[in-house]
Amino acid sequence: MSDPLLDPLFGAAPPLLPALVEVEAALARAAGRVGLIPAGAAADIVACCRNSRFDAVDLGRRAVGSASVVVPLVEEIRALVPATAAPYVHYGATSQDVIDTALSLNAARAIDAMQLDLDACAVALARLASAHRETEQIGRTLGQHAQVMTFGLTCAGWLAGLVEAWEALRRCRRERLAVQLGGPVGALAATGDQARALIAAFAEELALAAPAHSWHTNRVRVAELASGLGLVAGALGKIGQDVALLAQTEISEVAEGQPGTSSSMPHKRNPARSVLLVAAAHRAAGLVGAVYAGLPQELQRATGRWQAEWVTIGDLLGVCGVAAGHARVLLDGLRVDPRRMRANLDTFDTVGIP
Amino acid sequence: MSDPLLDPLFGAAPPLLPALVEVEAALARAAGRVGLIPAGAAADIVACCRNSRFDAVDLGRRAVGSASVVVPLVEEIRALVPATAAPYVHYGATSQDVIDTALSLNAARAIDAMQLDLDACAVALARLASAHRETEQIGRTLGQHAQVMTFGLTCAGWLAGLVEAWEALRRCRRERLAVQLGGPVGALAATGDQARALIAAFAEELALAAPAHSWHTNRVRVAELASGLGLVAGALGKIGQDVALLAQTEISEVAEGQPGTSSSMPHKRNPARSVLLVAAAHRAAGLVGAVYAGLPQELQRATGRWQAEWVTIGDLLGVCGVAAGHARVLLDGLRVDPRRMRANLDTFDTVGIP
Amino acid sequence: MSDPLLDPLFGAAPPLLPALVEVEAALARAAGRVGLIPAGAAADIVACCRNSRFDAVDLGRRAVGSASVVVPLVEEIRALVPATAAPYVHYGATSQDVIDTALSLNAARAIDAMQLDLDACAVALARLASAHRETEQIGRTLGQHAQVMTFGLTCAGWLAGLVEAWEALRRCRRERLAVQLGGPVGALAATGDQARALIAAFAEELALAAPAHSWHTNRVRVAELASGLGLVAGALGKIGQDVALLAQTEISEVAEGQPGTSSSMPHKRNPARSVLLVAAAHRAAGLVGAVYAGLPQELQRATGRWQAEWVTIGDLLGVCGVAAGHARVLLDGLRVDPRRMRANLDTFDTVGIP
Amino acid sequence: MSDPLLDPLFGAAPPLLPALVEVEAALARAAGRVGLIPAGAAADIVACCRNSRFDAVDLGRRAVGSASVVVPLVEEIRALVPATAAPYVHYGATSQDVIDTALSLNAARAIDAMQLDLDACAVALARLASAHRETEQIGRTLGQHAQVMTFGLTCAGWLAGLVEAWEALRRCRRERLAVQLGGPVGALAATGDQARALIAAFAEELALAAPAHSWHTNRVRVAELASGLGLVAGALGKIGQDVALLAQTEISEVAEGQPGTSSSMPHKRNPARSVLLVAAAHRAAGLVGAVYAGLPQELQRATGRWQAEWVTIGDLLGVCGVAAGHARVLLDGLRVDPRRMRANLDTFDTVGIP
Repeated sequence: MSDPLLDPLFGAAPPLLPALVEVEAALARAAGRVGLIPAGAAADIVACCRNSRFDAVDLGRRAVGSASVVVPLVEEIRALVPATAAPYVHYGATSQDVIDTALSLNAARAIDAMQLDLDACAVALARLASAHRETEQIGRTLGQHAQVMTFGLTCAGWLAGLVEAWEALRRCRRERLAVQLGGPVGALAATGDQARALIAAFAEELALAAPAHSWHTNRVRVAELASGLGLVAGALGKIGQDVALLAQTEISEVAEGQPGTSSSMPHKRNPARSVLLVAAAHRAAGLVGAVYAGLPQELQRATGRWQAEWVTIGDLLGVCGVAAGHARVLLDGLRVDPRRMRANLDTFDTVGIP
Repeated sequence: MSDPLLDPLFGAAPPLLPALVEVEAALARAAGRVGLIPAGAAADIVACCRNSRFDAVDLGRRAVGSASVVVPLVEEIRALVPATAAPYVHYGATSQDVIDTALSLNAARAIDAMQLDLDACAVALARLASAHRETEQIGRTLGQHAQVMTFGLTCAGWLAGLVEAWEALRRCRRERLAVQLGGPVGALAATGDQARALIAAFAEELALAAPAHSWHTNRVRVAELASGLGLVAGALGKIGQDVALLAQTEISEVAEGQPGTSSSMPHKRNPARSVLLVAAAHRAAGLVGAVYAGLPQELQRATGRWQAEWVTIGDLLGVCGVAAGHARVLLDGLRVDPRRMRANLDTFDTVGIP
Repeated sequence: MSDPLLDPLFGAAPPLLPALVEVEAALARAAGRVGLIPAGAAADIVACCRNSRFDAVDLGRRAVGSASVVVPLVEEIRALVPATAAPYVHYGATSQDVIDTALSLNAARAIDAMQLDLDACAVALARLASAHRETEQIGRTLGQHAQVMTFGLTCAGWLAGLVEAWEALRRCRRERLAVQLGGPVGALAATGDQARALIAAFAEELALAAPAHSWHTNRVRVAELASGLGLVAGALGKIGQDVALLAQTEISEVAEGQPGTSSSMPHKRNPARSVLLVAAAHRAAGLVGAVYAGLPQELQRATGRWQAEWVTIGDLLGVCGVAAGHARVLLDGLRVDPRRMRANLDTFDTVGIP
Repeated sequence: MSDPLLDPLFGAAPPLLPALVEVEAALARAAGRVGLIPAGAAADIVACCRNSRFDAVDLGRRAVGSASVVVPLVEEIRALVPATAAPYVHYGATSQDVIDTALSLNAARAIDAMQLDLDACAVALARLASAHRETEQIGRTLGQHAQVMTFGLTCAGWLAGLVEAWEALRRCRRERLAVQLGGPVGALAATGDQARALIAAFAEELALAAPAHSWHTNRVRVAELASGLGLVAGALGKIGQDVALLAQTEISEVAEGQPGTSSSMPHKRNPARSVLLVAAAHRAAGLVGAVYAGLPQELQRATGRWQAEWVTIGDLLGVCGVAAGHARVLLDGLRVDPRRMRANLDTFDTVGIP
């Protein structure tokens, strides 16, 4: 979720309400396109969704009684549209259809928004790997000097991890982020023969995948999303961990370009963004575990495990997005000290290790 | 953290900034009391903390560079107080002292605030246990009818779990929620002989415990706090899980007093608060695990695991507080149907089980 | 790991030692093939690995001092082979190369071994979905009767989840389970120009993928393996959860074919395998989270997070494999009671729900 | 669970079968003492439990059908005792009574067994703290030199964490490790007026606490046990983490007394036990999270979450016990290099930090 003081450090979940509203509009548009609801009603609903200002505080309060944030929202939209359109609001859908689709939508956008930062990270890493392909550095295993390698190889390892993780997340975004539209029990009863066409149109409206089945309580794709995000956070956390280690006073082989200051020790050059990357990976792992623990969801609607996803997935998106930004700043500004690498190597030679 | 739409369902972390400001004020007051800083400076700092409006958005943005939300806050307070007081702001403290103490303070208040709701839950459970001590109900193991018991015993079991969990959390609140004041490396170097007196006064100002040692990277008490919160969330989640099961259409032995409605099925009586309790327990467990995973913090300040606690502990406080409120509403309004309990028992007899 | 009493219920990790020995043999064979070591030495090492009985208890005890189970194994093999072959044992490898490859090997075999059970599950589910495509069943959301659907659709949903999860795991097995061979710091220094050829031959020997980079501390592929296993365990856990719910005395729409008995209540028909599936999913989720928490591994060799993987991945393989077997028995023998589904529906009609 | 190769590194869960047998014997003895079963039958059962060799492999296989390891064990004991005693085997108990009590028993013994190692750790830490109270060492925050402190203070911090964690675990062992004896649904129906007396005698036989209520699905005390174990593992993991950092080649302020060797780099002095401590803390955290996730157990017997505890608690006991042993060896043999601490401090002075 979100706290203005902490968001820039740890990331904010994308707000759910705008996505819910957008999904209700897209559903109306899609239902209008396939002829399930009158074109005029669809237009009214879309206009209402676009032009109304919904009060998150009020809707949130009203949502408690149903444990569903969509129940009061649908009431609200129905009250706002012309009476002729009211019956067509939320057409054929159940609350979970809208919430799951909104989560997919927020996820898709958050992932798309990471692209710029992660591409920049990859470019920076490729540049570093290339620039330092001859820069000798001692390899360290269990914290001990082990064998000579190059700093370029260190960077290539970081790059490989990031590329693999990002590839997994992008595949998930492309193939697995889908709309949900099953109606109350996943049977799409209300929309009859038009069900397939409606789902296809709905998916097209939102640039999401059209699922072959309802996934109300089949959360494999949600767990895959969590995994993809956790991989990216983890790959970035590995970089942060390593930079923090290499930036230790006694090692000082790298430094952050804009190192943080300390409230009590102005002389300090803290690896601030590295720390935030490690923290992000740490939090992400806990959230991934929670999503997997939520897989055995009950019958046609889970009593708790699904609802817990709303916050957990939101937090994962926030933490991963902010980590991508921190990593970019870190890598774009990373200061590398080849002489210190050399000096650490020489010291190592002096202790008689081959 | 916080999202106005979701907070009423899942809880909001208490905001960190007001607590940080209050801690800086308390530190000034304590340092003034023991004579480490001039009384006038202390008064100036306290007045500044009380009367200034700090901009969380701006401070958050400025915090990224140091990975510390206290660095820009201290700058801000120093800029706001009279020049004579500026050197005494944040006296003898390091960022972590203020953040840890603020987390303790938020925790103490959040726990104190749960008391009312949890006491009400206990009263409701005691009342139910007493009222239904003769109300026969079938006991169910693995979902199967097992042996006759009473609904009173079911409620007594819920009560026992809640009381045990709450007792553990209260002990933690009383004995383990402490101020932190160690200075940069936990040695309290800046405050010399007055260190003990300063800590005692600081703790007194905030009604927190005075620790025997700095706990910058000894996070046992933080994990104990997480445990206490997780136990309460878990004990409430157990109640929610059971109510949801007993409220199933085929069983219908209990119902929520204000059952939720559905966006697509107005006839439904959803066990909304039960669902939220299960969701809360689910999220809490993931957060507890993350805190334990954070125990091995590095040397005198952790690179990531500590920073991750800020959000994790905040989220745990939010989730536990909101769960206490949901449980109260659930238990105060719980509808019990002894005739249905009887009928389910009779059906069970008809299938020939002793 | 393994306890003979509990293994049949919860699964046993595949033992590591045979895989380690096999990997050392494969490495010798590969190094011999590409000409890095004499053919005779390779043959000697392979023969030794094949014919020797290594004492796991003794090796385990000797492994503590190095925190590496390969150090004493290599000593042992070197002592057993002819003196001329001794220098070629473990050629160009570091301990982690052998352990990671052994984990991949155990994973590949465990996954391959699941195929039979999971295929049988899929066949059973497809058969159930088809046989019951007209069998009306009430859909249940939050435990409440919601809308009519068919039991065939319920089964199709289980099948979809299983197929998606299995697909993800198989892709991981095919593309991501790789040998490791980087030498001490991942630079493959010892094998020079032949490094690529050696890796290719090594991978071929073991029918694993040849990685483009060393992945000593880039654990993305390990997390992907954990995810794949967690997805399968979760998809099976969802089935178990649902069967347990549908088998509740008051619902009784399905029953396990070989329901468990109770030590105190011989009349009970416990959904034993459903329970084991839920337990497996629960454990798997915790293990997946632990693997993700281990992603930020330090520099060229992690100090703890990697070593924790040995047990965690083993346990995941065990838990997933046993769950596949339980699910097969459960689904092959599942008893479905369409009349009871009808009766529950009729009851539901009587309470006046459309 | 257990793998002979890995157990010495990562710990083995105590085997469950001997504890189950011992609990059945203690139950018979207690029921005999309070006169619920004939003294002769009690003696027969006790003798059978003491003298029989039960086959874990066979019992495990037979347990799958009931998802209960006690069902086949009780059958076995009933078959082995004289016919007159058979009806009194497992008197008044349900499977969970025996399993939970056996888990408590194993936990109590495992914790008691840690005492020696943890006391030795505390002694070693107190000695180090005292010996090095004047040994100046640079304090490091975020890996950066911060302020001068002493190595004695570092050790005192380790000691404080260990003492706090151990205190919490001991309180749990003393007050919370209890027998379970509720009969099928926790109502102790079979034992009538003698129920309290039976529980007291049962608890006395096993030196465990007598609970005020059945805790079949109130798992607060199990979560408290997990927490206590997780705290100890975490406190030890913190020590391991710090030793590994201080032993880094460039820092070299401490070294393990028996440093590990490497399969490829004989010159290396690996901080082997430090690594195992970090790994133990890492695994423990995941297991603690899993126990908390298991708190919302269903009605009178959980369908999965309880069963998952058997392995999880066993693993936690194993991991914590082995960590205590590793920590003792580590701390007893820790080599401290005050001159290197001085040299690192001097280097730090040269970069102009106060």
